[in-house]
Amino acid sequence: MDRTIPSTQRRVTLAARPEGAPRLSDFAVRVGPVPTPADGEVLVRTVYLSLDPYLRGRMGSSAAHSSATPAVPLGGVMEGGTVGEVALSAAAGFAPGDLVTGNSGWQEYAVQPAAALRRLDPAAAPVSTALGILGMPGLTGWAGLVEIGRPRPGETVVVAAATGVVGSVVGQLARRRGARAVGIAGGPDKVAWLRAAGFDAAIDHRAPDFAGQLAAATPDGIDVYVENVGGRVWDAVWPRLNRHARVPVCGVASAYSATGRGTGDMSALLSHLVTRSITMRGFAFHEFAHLRPQFEAEVAAGLRAGELVHHEEVVTGLDRAPAAFLGMLAGEHLGKRLVRVGADPTR
Amino acid sequence: MDRTIPSTQRRVTLAARPEGAPRLSDFAVRVGPVPTPADGEVLVRTVYLSLDPYLRGRMGSSAAHSSATPAVPLGGVMEGGTVGEVALSAAAGFAPGDLVTGNSGWQEYAVQPAAALRRLDPAAAPVSTALGILGMPGLTGWAGLVEIGRPRPGETVVVAAATGVVGSVVGQLARRRGARAVGIAGGPDKVAWLRAAGFDAAIDHRAPDFAGQLAAATPDGIDVYVENVGGRVWDAVWPRLNRHARVPVCGVASAYSATGRGTGDMSALLSHLVTRSITMRGFAFHEFAHLRPQFEAEVAAGLRAGELVHHEEVVTGLDRAPAAFLGMLAGEHLGKRLVRVGADPTR
Repeated sequence: MDRTIPSTQRRVTLAARPEGAPRLSDFAVRVGPVPTPADGEVLVRTVYLSLDPYLRGRMGSSAAHSSATPAVPLGGVMEGGTVGEVALSAAAGFAPGDLVTGNSGWQEYAVQPAAALRRLDPAAAPVSTALGILGMPGLTGWAGLVEIGRPRPGETVVVAAATGVVGSVVGQLARRRGARAVGIAGGPDKVAWLRAAGFDAAIDHRAPDFAGQLAAATPDGIDVYVENVGGRVWDAVWPRLNRHARVPVCGVASAYSATGRGTGDMSALLSHLVTRSITMRGFAFHEFAHLRPQFEAEVAAGLRAGELVHHEEVVTGLDRAPAAFLGMLAGEHLGKRLVRVGADPTR
Repeated sequence: MDRTIPSTQRRVTLAARPEGAPRLSDFAVRVGPVPTPADGEVLVRTVYLSLDPYLRGRMGSSAAHSSATPAVPLGGVMEGGTVGEVALSAAAGFAPGDLVTGNSGWQEYAVQPAAALRRLDPAAAPVSTALGILGMPGLTGWAGLVEIGRPRPGETVVVAAATGVVGSVVGQLARRRGARAVGIAGGPDKVAWLRAAGFDAAIDHRAPDFAGQLAAATPDGIDVYVENVGGRVWDAVWPRLNRHARVPVCGVASAYSATGRGTGDMSALLSHLVTRSITMRGFAFHEFAHLRPQFEAEVAAGLRAGELVHHEEVVTGLDRAPAAFLGMLAGEHLGKRLVRVGADPTR
């Protein structure tokens, strides 16, 4: 395929810091140069851009986003995980046409140090999965469940945002370990998808009787809760945590766009942790990067064998990334939402 | 010594379930029989009764007391840890005059199964310490710090109710491990005691500028926080928790008598746990009972060598137990508060 490298490219930059829910006007599409790689660097053409809730935190401003990572500077290119094709290489081990995953951000081309890239094998799995079930969110779900949650057969595992990559991995892997998997999601379509994906029970958090439905779906209490949403789901879940329950905490999606304070009964929570000897453990996937071989051994093999289900939504065109991102924050997506920024040479 | 066993004894019973802070009228002193031990049982004469915050939970009623242990029944004898002298034995391995620790409750005599007693060696340490630094609270502090907190040299360890047994053990053992120990307590007398006991910094949580003082005393943030109070102390502590901080949670003293809800910014807490990869772990001392040899090897030896400081307040007379308990819940004590119910044969 002819891959002429243009001299200019489009980028999505951060135009304003949102208070609360971001708006389209917080983003701007700009034209900029295509950079040239120096020694040890690679020019990567973006194929897929990953849309993830944590990116709201990188937009900054809301005090609720207690982040250890600095926000994107105003006028800077939005961050984001990507799958791309090597266009030019000044680094040993990479050649034009190689497929890689990295963090090029919301732009058509980026120069990246070779050490920041991981090579992909299109024969092993569709390359887009490197941003989903075989990427950051997949590893997050796997590590949270397997390394922190450690469910035993017969235990009850609950996860919210259960149609998302983290949630669907948690639920499916919990079932493979003989645990009962209960998924929480918003709306009847997502609940139906969870049932089809094999969850033992699925609950709509928008239901007026949500807490009562959760209680009915977890008659023996909850042993593992993989926390990625917070808010009223957390308020309903924690009183049902059993003795020695484990709570891997990998995200607080409900807070990403909140301007108000997410108040809760902190004293009662602390008392419950004491009397039930419960562990809560915040974590990020990169703490478990050294376990990628074990993760891939289970999840990539499960995908190839058709034993694990995953769902992708692909939006075409970098210009549509802001709207697709806002929709994802509002929960309108099912599964992994990606933007196809450029042609996928494997399809 | 002549120890005639009487036919009747005094007991303190639970007369009413308190809403919020208990009152003297929630207790009643009653006269009852002295029971006779059956096979495998021992009649123990109470010498010391332990007053501990968790006993508020055993009085029941407030919803904040999410306890896995049932409350004392109305009209029942108040629970409580005790040191006593064997008066009559129908169990192999126990003879009159033996000193033991168990849970006789708030009464002068109790029959207990031999398996519920632990024999004490008065030559190793004063027997009253079995309710304090060498007992439940001492093991709680040791296990929370050593097994969960695991401070490294140069790290900052913070503990509240720091003049209590748990807190003073945590602070002193943290310093022995090369960590910086910061104690929080209420009032200038307690703060002065903490400084004398070797804490690197001591803060009065009643100070209007408490949060600012905590920040000044923890310039490098907080790596280990042993949580035993909750409330506004917790609100000030958690935003200062560092990456990979550990939070052993063994009590929520501020909630034991609260009728209101202990609200806090739950979303911001969860976000902080994620972005800093923080672990919170509720626990109770009995989970670590198998480590008593290691605990005693450090703490009993430290006591004998005069390297560890502890402080006891002994109130004389079972009738005074309710008032002494209410005062302890209000924080008027320093160190371990005990009631001497009967003569101590070792003094």
